[in-house]
Amino acid sequence: MAKPNPSPSDLVLIFVVAVIFGASSPSPAAARSSSSPSSRWAPPRFVGKFNKLQQPQIRYETRYFEQRLDHFSFSELPRFRQRYLISTEHWVGPTRLGPIFVYCGNEGDIAWFAANTGFVWEIAPQFGAMVVFPEHRYYGESVPYGNGEEAYKNATTLSYLTAEQALADFSVLITNLKKNLSAEGCPVVLFGGSYGGMLASWMRLKYPHIAIGALASSAPILQFEDIVPVETFYDLVSNGFKRESSSCFNTIKQSWDVLLSEGQKNDGLLQLTKSFHLCRTLRSIDDLTDWLESAYSYLAMVNYPYPSEFIMPLPGHPIREVCSKIDRSPVEASILERIFEGISVFYNYTGKVDCFQLDDDPHGMDGWNWQACTEMIMPMSSGRDSSMFPTYDFNFSSYQEQCWRDFGVKPRPRWITTEFGGHDIKATLQNFGSNIIFSNGLLDPWSGGGVLKNISKSIVALVTDEGAHHLDLRASTNEDPEWLVEQRATEIELIKSWLNDYYQENKAVFEM
Amino acid sequence: MAKPNPSPSDLVLIFVVAVIFGASSPSPAAARSSSSPSSRWAPPRFVGKFNKLQQPQIRYETRYFEQRLDHFSFSELPRFRQRYLISTEHWVGPTRLGPIFVYCGNEGDIAWFAANTGFVWEIAPQFGAMVVFPEHRYYGESVPYGNGEEAYKNATTLSYLTAEQALADFSVLITNLKKNLSAEGCPVVLFGGSYGGMLASWMRLKYPHIAIGALASSAPILQFEDIVPVETFYDLVSNGFKRESSSCFNTIKQSWDVLLSEGQKNDGLLQLTKSFHLCRTLRSIDDLTDWLESAYSYLAMVNYPYPSEFIMPLPGHPIREVCSKIDRSPVEASILERIFEGISVFYNYTGKVDCFQLDDDPHGMDGWNWQACTEMIMPMSSGRDSSMFPTYDFNFSSYQEQCWRDFGVKPRPRWITTEFGGHDIKATLQNFGSNIIFSNGLLDPWSGGGVLKNISKSIVALVTDEGAHHLDLRASTNEDPEWLVEQRATEIELIKSWLNDYYQENKAVFEM
Repeated sequence: MAKPNPSPSDLVLIFVVAVIFGASSPSPAAARSSSSPSSRWAPPRFVGKFNKLQQPQIRYETRYFEQRLDHFSFSELPRFRQRYLISTEHWVGPTRLGPIFVYCGNEGDIAWFAANTGFVWEIAPQFGAMVVFPEHRYYGESVPYGNGEEAYKNATTLSYLTAEQALADFSVLITNLKKNLSAEGCPVVLFGGSYGGMLASWMRLKYPHIAIGALASSAPILQFEDIVPVETFYDLVSNGFKRESSSCFNTIKQSWDVLLSEGQKNDGLLQLTKSFHLCRTLRSIDDLTDWLESAYSYLAMVNYPYPSEFIMPLPGHPIREVCSKIDRSPVEASILERIFEGISVFYNYTGKVDCFQLDDDPHGMDGWNWQACTEMIMPMSSGRDSSMFPTYDFNFSSYQEQCWRDFGVKPRPRWITTEFGGHDIKATLQNFGSNIIFSNGLLDPWSGGGVLKNISKSIVALVTDEGAHHLDLRASTNEDPEWLVEQRATEIELIKSWLNDYYQENKAVFEM
Repeated sequence: MAKPNPSPSDLVLIFVVAVIFGASSPSPAAARSSSSPSSRWAPPRFVGKFNKLQQPQIRYETRYFEQRLDHFSFSELPRFRQRYLISTEHWVGPTRLGPIFVYCGNEGDIAWFAANTGFVWEIAPQFGAMVVFPEHRYYGESVPYGNGEEAYKNATTLSYLTAEQALADFSVLITNLKKNLSAEGCPVVLFGGSYGGMLASWMRLKYPHIAIGALASSAPILQFEDIVPVETFYDLVSNGFKRESSSCFNTIKQSWDVLLSEGQKNDGLLQLTKSFHLCRTLRSIDDLTDWLESAYSYLAMVNYPYPSEFIMPLPGHPIREVCSKIDRSPVEASILERIFEGISVFYNYTGKVDCFQLDDDPHGMDGWNWQACTEMIMPMSSGRDSSMFPTYDFNFSSYQEQCWRDFGVKPRPRWITTEFGGHDIKATLQNFGSNIIFSNGLLDPWSGGGVLKNISKSIVALVTDEGAHHLDLRASTNEDPEWLVEQRATEIELIKSWLNDYYQENKAVFEM
């Protein structure tokens, strides 16, 4: 079965969820998402689960900073208030050149990222560091034009939602903050996960005078144009299943045709609704396909070796568990019965779900969908052999048409690599950059778009075989495996070395 | 005598002229300037002299490329055609990875810069290089909104005239050009003088993936905020006179009060008009003061050791000649008579001028004045002791008020250093940048805002004691002194080493 042309929002859905999977409490933005069925920013079917998670103990002040809407022109535009969270509790202050840790807010409510980036808060005391979490424009409370409704009204109001503007926001904010605290000499270290990790590494490249280094976790900065093969993402998800069991992989691969032919029968949709315990009668086979595909992709991202509750409460090695259900269903079980047993590990591990809600309005307007329709064009195909998903060839024309229908905007698929590079990343970074950690877990399908090899002495790839999506940025737990403890220790050592270099250099005064 | 508050256009006038001083034929922009008394882009009193100069033999094709007006947003704005000059005559082509030499067009007609940047054309053949001269937006033929009148109408239409947009123009153009020629692997080397040199060095910093190196000649990238002392520029001009003769310096320093008291007498302005052989009766003493001040500053910029015809036909060591006239006038000559004799070396070396035209409408709207009122805030004061000019303290409030009156725009004095750095330039470039030549001649008052010390193995300062404003970029002549021949040879060697490094690296393929 050929996959119907996915829309840009289909393709990015997994990314959006990837970066928000750690959310532990309903943030205002999440609440908006949840209450508005037309928004796909945080798919409603996941958001409700987040409030079970534990909150790390973090304390901060919430402040606001007035920003220009377009840093790169002098157009008369309304300004907006950027929210930022700040803690100076452990900061040793400007006279001792206390470091400033800045998390590059990504596509969501910043309080939510702060709550789910425990690593930064945990290490701040030993560094005597200030912690700052600036919010990304157009998300959370940092929306222009007074409110989200106005800001998201159309392509004109949305047009300043770009990565470059966000980086300029961070740079202006940090520069002002330092000036006001007489902390111009204090070194800034950047952190970020997923899209936030992309921002952190790009900011280190574009604003080396603002920050001395960046920890970019699970940042797929190479997932553009043809830099990595278009089939990488779905191949990596599929490999995650194949390595557990080739029969599991095959069952899933066969299931799409079966689903299609079942759905085309008389009463087929009704029958599938029953088989999959859906709360509402299926309106289209695609809705069910999307629901299954999403689950497989999320499973690959959170395929951690110990139980977790990121997107869903899940056992350790969740793909192993899913495949075990698919493979070990009674011999007489049909393919779809096996699939249902498997998928229930993801959607109903606690066994408390009576029926499943599908997200059947995937084209709502939200920030990330806009970004995916403008700059963040990440082509993805699903191949005939190595992918267990329905085959699909990325087609830029249909992608573009969909963006025009959704937002009235034309994507610029080559802009990100023009602005930030990518094709010649090794040469560029080797000769130019310094002090960046690219951390990736190989189980994470986004790792395919990441930097996986050391580039120079100070541009380091930390790759963990058993790691998944930016786990290193989360608060430590008693269940952390040794490799994760070691990875974080390495990160701390690298950051220390950047700071030591900085302090040594600053004994010397520059005479022009 | 205290200098009256100069407007931003006063302060930048010398810069504007500095970068255009090599113009050899009236370009369209120059012609516009010359015919429109309200434009100060190229002061009318100089433009007329340019068409005497020899044209270097250069051949190129003129092409156009459609650009977005705002690269950093998705606003629906009219696109514009960017002009670029291109020569592939000596290019060895994409299979041999022939280099691409790109001159970063600055604030003027690009044909004019092409004609006055002979160095790039001269060295292209030995490198087998393509040569590209893209024009800076809002100058020459590359104006948006259909024509210059519309583009320069008001702050709204002008608002996209910024350095960052210009750099993005260059990057998008180069990327497209390379793609169309299947020349993605061909290394790009940037060139630029004065503001164009600033652009070249900033582009190397911001777009290291686009260009492998930059020759930034006479680029005062540190002339912002408080990075260099505000009195640097006028002190350097003054030093140029003092080192020739302290009595000359003193005569000029005393002349301002004399001028003022003469001007305040009955018929004083008429008397001064006669003494200085002006074509039209003086309306204000300031016009005469500006005229004299400009001449001294230009003299410092073009204080070359051999005869030249950049701004004006001038003898070698022109300041020495001026001072010799000032000092050796008959003993009984008054201060103002001495000043007139001296200044005539600059304004009338050929002896053919019957009377002098002053530029008495300095507040015309033009591109560089806009840039000076928005991003390019270069604070300059004239001190009590070390400067021979009237004392003046840079006052940002009045500067801002003047910009508001002239353009209805508010300057952003800290933006350039936020976007491009500056304060910590050594540390930033040492740890981050590579392959930049900062060339400066110490006689050039703009050298005070330049990078004058080597920063790393590949970020090199080439400083010439007897050099002035970006002489190295001009075509060679038989009169070139040995140090200039050597400087150019060093530049060629450095560019060769960048290219060799690039070719060596590209034998290895990057495996992610």
